[in-house]
Amino acid sequence: MQKEKVAEKIGYIGLGIMGKAMVENLAKAGHKINVYARRQVSVDALETNNIEAFSSPAALAEASNVIISCVSDTPDVEQVLVGPQGVIDGIQANSLVIDMSTISPESTQNMANQFSQAGASMLDAPVSGGEVGAIAATLSIMVGGAAEDFARATPIFECLGKNIIHVGASGAGQVAKACNNLVAAQTMVAVAEAYLLARSCDVDPAKVRDALLGGFAYSRVLELHGQRVLDENYVAGFKTKLHAKDLRIALKSAETKSIKMPGTELSDHYLQALLKQGDGELDSAAMAKVILENT
Amino acid sequence: MQKEKVAEKIGYIGLGIMGKAMVENLAKAGHKINVYARRQVSVDALETNNIEAFSSPAALAEASNVIISCVSDTPDVEQVLVGPQGVIDGIQANSLVIDMSTISPESTQNMANQFSQAGASMLDAPVSGGEVGAIAATLSIMVGGAAEDFARATPIFECLGKNIIHVGASGAGQVAKACNNLVAAQTMVAVAEAYLLARSCDVDPAKVRDALLGGFAYSRVLELHGQRVLDENYVAGFKTKLHAKDLRIALKSAETKSIKMPGTELSDHYLQALLKQGDGELDSAAMAKVILENT
Repeated sequence: MQKEKVAEKIGYIGLGIMGKAMVENLAKAGHKINVYARRQVSVDALETNNIEAFSSPAALAEASNVIISCVSDTPDVEQVLVGPQGVIDGIQANSLVIDMSTISPESTQNMANQFSQAGASMLDAPVSGGEVGAIAATLSIMVGGAAEDFARATPIFECLGKNIIHVGASGAGQVAKACNNLVAAQTMVAVAEAYLLARSCDVDPAKVRDALLGGFAYSRVLELHGQRVLDENYVAGFKTKLHAKDLRIALKSAETKSIKMPGTELSDHYLQALLKQGDGELDSAAMAKVILENT
Repeated sequence: MQKEKVAEKIGYIGLGIMGKAMVENLAKAGHKINVYARRQVSVDALETNNIEAFSSPAALAEASNVIISCVSDTPDVEQVLVGPQGVIDGIQANSLVIDMSTISPESTQNMANQFSQAGASMLDAPVSGGEVGAIAATLSIMVGGAAEDFARATPIFECLGKNIIHVGASGAGQVAKACNNLVAAQTMVAVAEAYLLARSCDVDPAKVRDALLGGFAYSRVLELHGQRVLDENYVAGFKTKLHAKDLRIALKSAETKSIKMPGTELSDHYLQALLKQGDGELDSAAMAKVILENT
């Protein structure tokens, strides 16, 4: 005997590059989506009509039982989820909030507690894979929260991504995302130093990349960003200002926990150098530009 | 009309873990191999009879027209190739020396000049892939030297490895190998910092690894060394003392060329810490142990 499946009424907050693609994938899967965006133009840009727009996160939450948020930074999430006219003001009992933004693990845990006190629950589910992954529904999704909530959200996640991992309790998804971004940043530094050494020894960095791709030094960063650097193609992709924001989250968590991450600090230094010279809109692979130009 | 193929008479110097496996693969391919090892026990350990042992590198060179060396460090290569009773003393016109050790690019270029003056030639062809790759003949081989010498050596390389790249002129193979090792070392630091952050936030590093394997932070180091670190399995593999030696080559080249590689310096710091505490025989993945224990 099969359990009857209740269709979730999904609300989505935040229609940026990532949000737009995710809403369209959910619509393609047959969901009617309640949406809220701070700017009406983002609603107008959606390529699906299977939506209903709301005037506040609270109003959207009243009409939805799964509310997904995907906005830029910790204060933005706090505003739409627990600020004035936020989701918390309209949340229904047993509703599930899924925050897919990349924000502070500590703030995530605070908000999850507030939703729990309101009789609802919350997952953190930041993603990796960028615009390309969002459009192709191949995002990696790193999830923190209760197992039953993860199970409830899985059919939704499967409309959006491929590598869906329940990392642990509330905040664990954000911790995994911080780890993802600090590993990617440091790998970029490593590849850039390799190119720098090669160039200074009159060896073609492209040939070095070829040699390294087949062996133990292989990484996705070497393959994708390594080629970007050779092409000097720094069109984002994943913007420097966002990668810098994410490393600040990682370094803030490290400070809170009294641990040192000098490799992460080094890569943050290059991202900050890009920000200072006004290159925050470039892809974060431009870290290599700083390393290759300033030596 | 096919050009008649002259079978090379191959001499091999250095029968350590890597050399033993390579000689046996060359013998399997039908070559009779002239060998020289500083210790007779290394000759006795060979699992093939298709060899002839010589009492000095000079004597071996007189009886061979392709001479391969695979020993530990720059001074060892200098001794067997250009030292007293070295290969240079017995080298025949048009012979080809292939050094598969990992050594200084600058010393490589010096020795290549000496062989050139003797009417012979030399390739640098360091490898990546370790004992497993040497036995399975799946080594990555990074080659520096003249194109015609690379072409001449290719059938031999094909008995030993899979990813065979002609990187550039003399020394370029060693530069690529230095790049390979500095990228691998820094990627290990990055993964260890991720595990440290995860652990300090009460998140399971194994789950973080699962989440990262599917996305942009993927690397072979995360996959293979990442698992080693979870298992606390530091049986070499690639010994810390050799990885440290290789980073010193990279940092020496950087110094010669007046460039800075702070990420490489940071990873060297962890390798040196292992050496200081007497852990030079451990796999170099033990860098993670220093990072996870000393914070």
